[in-house]
Amino acid sequence: MSINLLTYDNLKIFCEAAFHRFGFNEHDSAVITDVLLLADLYGIDSHGTNRIVMYHDQIRAGYIDIGAKPLIVSETPVSAVIDGMSGMGQLVSKFAMKKAIALAKTSGIGLVTVRNSNHYGIAGYYSLMACNEGFLGISMTNSLAAVVPTFGRVPMLGTNPFAFSFPAVPQPFHFDASTSVVTVGKAEVSGKTGKALPVGWGINADGYDELDPSALLRGIYAGTAGLHPLGGGTEEHGGHKGYGFSMVVEILSSIMSGGTTSNHVEKEEGKSGVCHFFAAIDPKIFGNPAVIQNKLEIFLEELRNSMKADGKDRIYTHGEKEAESYTRRIEEGIPVNEKTVEEMKDLADYLKMDFYRYFPELKI
Amino acid sequence: MSINLLTYDNLKIFCEAAFHRFGFNEHDSAVITDVLLLADLYGIDSHGTNRIVMYHDQIRAGYIDIGAKPLIVSETPVSAVIDGMSGMGQLVSKFAMKKAIALAKTSGIGLVTVRNSNHYGIAGYYSLMACNEGFLGISMTNSLAAVVPTFGRVPMLGTNPFAFSFPAVPQPFHFDASTSVVTVGKAEVSGKTGKALPVGWGINADGYDELDPSALLRGIYAGTAGLHPLGGGTEEHGGHKGYGFSMVVEILSSIMSGGTTSNHVEKEEGKSGVCHFFAAIDPKIFGNPAVIQNKLEIFLEELRNSMKADGKDRIYTHGEKEAESYTRRIEEGIPVNEKTVEEMKDLADYLKMDFYRYFPELKI
Repeated sequence: MSINLLTYDNLKIFCEAAFHRFGFNEHDSAVITDVLLLADLYGIDSHGTNRIVMYHDQIRAGYIDIGAKPLIVSETPVSAVIDGMSGMGQLVSKFAMKKAIALAKTSGIGLVTVRNSNHYGIAGYYSLMACNEGFLGISMTNSLAAVVPTFGRVPMLGTNPFAFSFPAVPQPFHFDASTSVVTVGKAEVSGKTGKALPVGWGINADGYDELDPSALLRGIYAGTAGLHPLGGGTEEHGGHKGYGFSMVVEILSSIMSGGTTSNHVEKEEGKSGVCHFFAAIDPKIFGNPAVIQNKLEIFLEELRNSMKADGKDRIYTHGEKEAESYTRRIEEGIPVNEKTVEEMKDLADYLKMDFYRYFPELKI
Repeated sequence: MSINLLTYDNLKIFCEAAFHRFGFNEHDSAVITDVLLLADLYGIDSHGTNRIVMYHDQIRAGYIDIGAKPLIVSETPVSAVIDGMSGMGQLVSKFAMKKAIALAKTSGIGLVTVRNSNHYGIAGYYSLMACNEGFLGISMTNSLAAVVPTFGRVPMLGTNPFAFSFPAVPQPFHFDASTSVVTVGKAEVSGKTGKALPVGWGINADGYDELDPSALLRGIYAGTAGLHPLGGGTEEHGGHKGYGFSMVVEILSSIMSGGTTSNHVEKEEGKSGVCHFFAAIDPKIFGNPAVIQNKLEIFLEELRNSMKADGKDRIYTHGEKEAESYTRRIEEGIPVNEKTVEEMKDLADYLKMDFYRYFPELKI
């Protein structure tokens, strides 16, 4: 499959225009685009502009209410519960994390749970919002069920990502990962290579490990097959632990918000019901933030400098790969595969946008 | 190896007496014993009474100061930082979680970080303290380095367990697990069976997967080999995610307390430096606790009732196995292997205790 390099600026202008034509105002279109493009810049290709079409489908399916305003259902000095009112996940989530940060500024900590929202893009966008204020940021979301509990065979949990960011130099500690062994997006990418999946990624409707990527994906969308939690399908390698971390995300997001658990997400007409959890914590409540940050930086450096496994020349700390991808892609452009370009072109035609005016680099 | 069934009551009286002879007062001896015996009752044999000898060794090595009183270094309405003053981990930790619960009672949430403590037993004991008050409880600790970062070959992180408990009927949701693929204790148990370890558990000084359990354990204690994080030694199965969760534990415990990171634990004369993190959150800050608990109970039941993988007749929710083990072991006794019985007998001789007076069931 051929890969096109698109510039950040052109993608941004196209994306903003597309969301504007979906019906979002200019401000909201810019917010949504910023979340999607950070995923592209960070190298998380499954959560970037290639999802425009998915969001468009969800708007047309009635899951996403374009004009919705999130509602603060209740709040205390350290917490808030927000009803997303079926709004776009990125808009609801930016609103919610802003609330968490505002609470942390006055109380030292802010915990915000959100119900009745939608797919919010990369979890890490929101934890970084807190991090950019000098705070510890945490972000989690449940999602359409795609993961089986240990010893189960039908999806009951979302890939339930967890993100945790804390300020550091040269880049923040930034951990953003699904609590499943892989994301649905990664199984899709593997499907395109034509190779069999590794044992331990997913289980099929017959209750056995599924090695055929397209069969696994079909099963996930049909609700008859699922990915395993982090640790795989056995207790021997700790699958029950990944299942546990997935439950932590589920409890903090859907249970604590009075929302919809993953197994019921997108099961109701006109409502997806996705739930989130956000936390912002001012490190000042534990001591001098500069001293704390310095301690973390020393430890991160010790990790990077420690002895490497055979054949490996580098140990990463979380956030390094993202920071390096960001720099490279701003300079060199964002790789977008042929299929996504075609989808974007079809979307542009549908929206009556002149595709090649946005991407002159793609003109033949 | 033969297994002896000892009654809870006899083990409790023996344990309390042994800790009393180590120098702890009666109250403190009872607290320590209660933590160890809950592990035994829950079936977590690696963290129960078989650790008495380890604690005795740490006292003699000068890591544990028997008379130490934990010191509150600083506090806010939502947080506290505690210096364990090299006290016994269980005593420091019970004090710290009590503080977190007290903060949660007035502020809705209490976060407590602890530095300069010692091995605290099972993480879940403390999260359950909060749970027993109707709160969400979280407990984490760093520990002696035994886990390598992804692509590393020397231990830099502890097994860094994470526990999360929330009230539910018929038993709390109770997740308590190391963030490594297995604990050191589990590798020890496998060593006793004589079988090779599975690929993905640990790496040796040459930088390759180590399948010989005794070689791996020697390497861990020598600091030249280590366990892999949850997800194993590759990114293919998400080892970098387990590494990330281990970092979350490390940052919340050692970095946020101004303490000692795992790679420096037990590296200093007379100080182990273990750090903990405790959180108690009143669900009232998010809504009606009874409604929240009911929502969780429904979801747990849906999980247990969902379709099973081939050859499996049961899906567990976290805390079920522990609750069932508890009931069974109170009734039938706690299985203690021959080696542990011998160690306890040697300890009794050393402490001038009449071993068979405590355990008449063991008299030949």
